[in-house]
Amino acid sequence: MKACGLIVEYNPFHNGHVYHLEEAKKKTDSDVVIGVMSGNFLQRGEPAIIDKWHRAEAALNTGMDVVLELPYVFAVQHADLFAKGAILTLASLNTNTVVFGSEQGDIQPFIQSYQQYKNQEKTFESELQENLNKGFSFPEASRKAYDMIDLNTGALDLTQPNNILGFSYVKAIYDENKDIKPETIRRTKSGYHDQEIKQNIASATSIRKEILKNMDIHPQVQSTIPASTYQSLMDYKHKTGIFHHWEPYFPYLQYKVMTESITRLSTIHGMEEGLEYRLKKTAKYAQSFQHWMKQIKTKRYTWTRLQRMFVHLLTNTSKRDVEAIQTLDELPYTRILGMTEKGRAYLHTQKKNMKLPLLSQLQQGDHLFLDIEEKAADTYYLPLQRATQIDMRKREVGPPIYLSSITKNRGD
Amino acid sequence: MKACGLIVEYNPFHNGHVYHLEEAKKKTDSDVVIGVMSGNFLQRGEPAIIDKWHRAEAALNTGMDVVLELPYVFAVQHADLFAKGAILTLASLNTNTVVFGSEQGDIQPFIQSYQQYKNQEKTFESELQENLNKGFSFPEASRKAYDMIDLNTGALDLTQPNNILGFSYVKAIYDENKDIKPETIRRTKSGYHDQEIKQNIASATSIRKEILKNMDIHPQVQSTIPASTYQSLMDYKHKTGIFHHWEPYFPYLQYKVMTESITRLSTIHGMEEGLEYRLKKTAKYAQSFQHWMKQIKTKRYTWTRLQRMFVHLLTNTSKRDVEAIQTLDELPYTRILGMTEKGRAYLHTQKKNMKLPLLSQLQQGDHLFLDIEEKAADTYYLPLQRATQIDMRKREVGPPIYLSSITKNRGD
Repeated sequence: MKACGLIVEYNPFHNGHVYHLEEAKKKTDSDVVIGVMSGNFLQRGEPAIIDKWHRAEAALNTGMDVVLELPYVFAVQHADLFAKGAILTLASLNTNTVVFGSEQGDIQPFIQSYQQYKNQEKTFESELQENLNKGFSFPEASRKAYDMIDLNTGALDLTQPNNILGFSYVKAIYDENKDIKPETIRRTKSGYHDQEIKQNIASATSIRKEILKNMDIHPQVQSTIPASTYQSLMDYKHKTGIFHHWEPYFPYLQYKVMTESITRLSTIHGMEEGLEYRLKKTAKYAQSFQHWMKQIKTKRYTWTRLQRMFVHLLTNTSKRDVEAIQTLDELPYTRILGMTEKGRAYLHTQKKNMKLPLLSQLQQGDHLFLDIEEKAADTYYLPLQRATQIDMRKREVGPPIYLSSITKNRGD
Repeated sequence: MKACGLIVEYNPFHNGHVYHLEEAKKKTDSDVVIGVMSGNFLQRGEPAIIDKWHRAEAALNTGMDVVLELPYVFAVQHADLFAKGAILTLASLNTNTVVFGSEQGDIQPFIQSYQQYKNQEKTFESELQENLNKGFSFPEASRKAYDMIDLNTGALDLTQPNNILGFSYVKAIYDENKDIKPETIRRTKSGYHDQEIKQNIASATSIRKEILKNMDIHPQVQSTIPASTYQSLMDYKHKTGIFHHWEPYFPYLQYKVMTESITRLSTIHGMEEGLEYRLKKTAKYAQSFQHWMKQIKTKRYTWTRLQRMFVHLLTNTSKRDVEAIQTLDELPYTRILGMTEKGRAYLHTQKKNMKLPLLSQLQQGDHLFLDIEEKAADTYYLPLQRATQIDMRKREVGPPIYLSSITKNRGD
C-alpha cells in the first residue's frame, strides 16, 4: 500500500483542506492519506478552536485514513522545528511522499533552493546568528539571512508564508535524510490570512473568526466546511459549551506571572531577551489577554512569537523540556489519534517495518514528551465546566478514534 | 501614653472582640489599643472573608487605635510561629502589655506553665521531635509532648484552643525576651468553634458561616457585630460583589498542581511527607476545593495544616522563603495598616524609640517579606471582576487608613 503524508493543523478542517487532501492522493497515486496534526495548541501559539480528537474525527470522516499527533514540543515552535517534528513523525510510518500546499505550486524550485542553501549553509547560519544578536525576531532574522544567500529566489518567493513552510519541510526531509518524496500543490483562491469568507473556500483564520464572533456555526461558515467538520464542531460545542480562544486562559497566565519569580519565569521556553521583566511589570494591571499582548508587544517580538511564549508559560514548558529536540534524529514514539478501517489496514502492513513504538494509549509510553502532552491537555480543558473537564481529561488518555467503514463513527 | 497590644484576625470583627478590646483597655489602664492583625490569609489556612483593609477599618471605627500587619510569613503558620511574629510586631511599637482571651482567664497558670516548660525544655523538644517522626501532626505531637512534661496542667488546661494560643504568646514574650506584660481575660459565652449564633455574641466561625451561606448580612448576624463591621462588610460587598472563601481559588490550585513538577511542588512550605504525590495524583479529577481536601485528608494531616499548605501553594511560598523566621529575633520592618488620630499621636511619641522602620507604603521597604505580602494580595483578589482586581491591587500598596476624630472615615 502506498501512503501519502500531509502536515496539518485543521483548525478547523475545511473545504480547502478537503481539496488539498484529494489532490494529494491523486497526484501521488496513493492508497491512503496519513496526516500528522498539531494537538491542542498550534504552531502560531494558540489554543485550537476544538480539541485534537474532534479535529481528527472530522478529517477521518472526510478522506483522511490515519491521524498522528505532532508532539507538543515540536508543534508550538518556529517553522524549522515544526517541520522537523512533522517529517520525523511521517517517516516513522514510512509514508512515500509528503504533499504540501504552496503559493509556488511546483516542487522543483524548492529542491533547487535547498541545494543552493546547502552550498551556502555556513554563510546562512552566521548571518542568521548575527541578525538574532542584533535583536531581530527569528522569522525576520531568518528571512534576512535567506536574502543574503542565493536561493534561486527568482523561482521561489520566500516571502510567501506557505512557501516558507514548504521550504522547511523539504529542508527537514533532506537534513534528516528521510526517504520521502516531497510534492506540492498550488494553493487556490483564499490566501493564508484572508479575513473574509468568499465562496466555499475560506481560510481557517476567517472561519475561526466567524465562529468565535458568533460562538456558533452560521450557514455562511457551514458552506466552507465539510459536513464532518460541522458535525465535530457542533458535537464539541454540545459537550463543552465553548469554542476555545485565548481569553479564558488569561487568569491562569496572570496568576502564574504574579506568583512566580523572575528567575523561574526565565526558565520558560520562549522567554528571551528580558521578556520576563516586561511580563512581571505588566501582569498585575493587565485587563485581558489582548490588552496584555499589546502592552508587551514591541518591534522586537512578533505577535506569533509572544503567543508561543504564552502557550509555554501556560503549560509550564521549560527551555530544558524542549532542548533535546534540536539534536534529536529519531522520535521516541509515534502516537496515533485516530484511524479508519483502511488506515488500520495500512498500519498493519507497516508493523514489521516500524522502528518506533506506536502508541494508542497515553499510558503505553513513558517519556517526558508524553508527560508534556498530558499536561497540555489538562491545561487546554481548563475553561470548561468542571464535570466536563474531568470527562475530557479521561478521554485524553486514549484509545484512538476508530472509524470502521460501517459505522464511520467514534468507536473504541 | 500607655499602650495595650492585642493579637487578632478579626474575621470579622464582632461583639466578642469589642468586649475583649474594652476589657483589655480597662484591665491594663491603657490610653491606646494596638492590634497586630493577620492580613488576607489567616492562621488556620483560609482567605479572610473580606480584605485586611476593610477588617482593619471596622476595628479602628470601634475602639482600636492602631492596626499593624502581621507579616504573611508569620500569619499562616502553626501557633508558635504565629505568636512569635505577633509579639515581635507589638514589641516594635513598645506596647506595655499583651492581653489575650483564654478559657483559663487568669495569667498566673500561664506563667507557671512557662516556667515548668522552661525547666523541661529539652525533654519537651525531644518528645516533640519523636512524635513528629512517628507521623503525628504538629498540634498533636506538641500536645503529646506537653503531656509528657509537667506544666502544672491542673491549673492550665492545654486542650483548650485559646489556652494553647495564650501559652504560645506567653512563651514568645519570654523566649524573645521582650519587655511586655502578658494579661488574659476569660472568654465569655460562645466557644471558639461554635457553629450557631446565640444572643449577641457569636464566634467568628458561626458568623462567617451565616454570611457565606446567604452571601449577605442577615439581621441575626447584624446583631452580633458592631455597626462598623456591618459597614465594612457591606462596603466590601458593594465594591467587589463577593465575600471570600476557598472555592474560587480552586481552579488556580488545580492548574498549579497539574502543571508543576513533583520536585517543584515539594519546595512549597508545608509540603511534607510526600503530600506532593497525593496532590498530583488527585488534581486532575478533583471537583471542588472541598472534594479535593477530602481526597487528600488522612489521619496524618489536620484539616488546618492542609489548608495552610494550600495557602502557600496558592501564593507560591517556598520553604526557603520562610526559613529565616525560625531564627529571626527582630522583624525587618513594621507595617501599619491603619490608625486613628489618637493612634497617630501614640506613634508620634514612639518614633524616637523605634528600632524598626515603620512602613506606611509598600514601596517604602525592600524586603522579601514585602514581596510576599504583595504577591499574597495580588492572589487574594483573583476571584474579583478584573477591573475591581486592579483597583484593589492599587489600594494594597498604601497608604494606611487614617481616621481623624472628626471624619471617622477612610482618609489618606
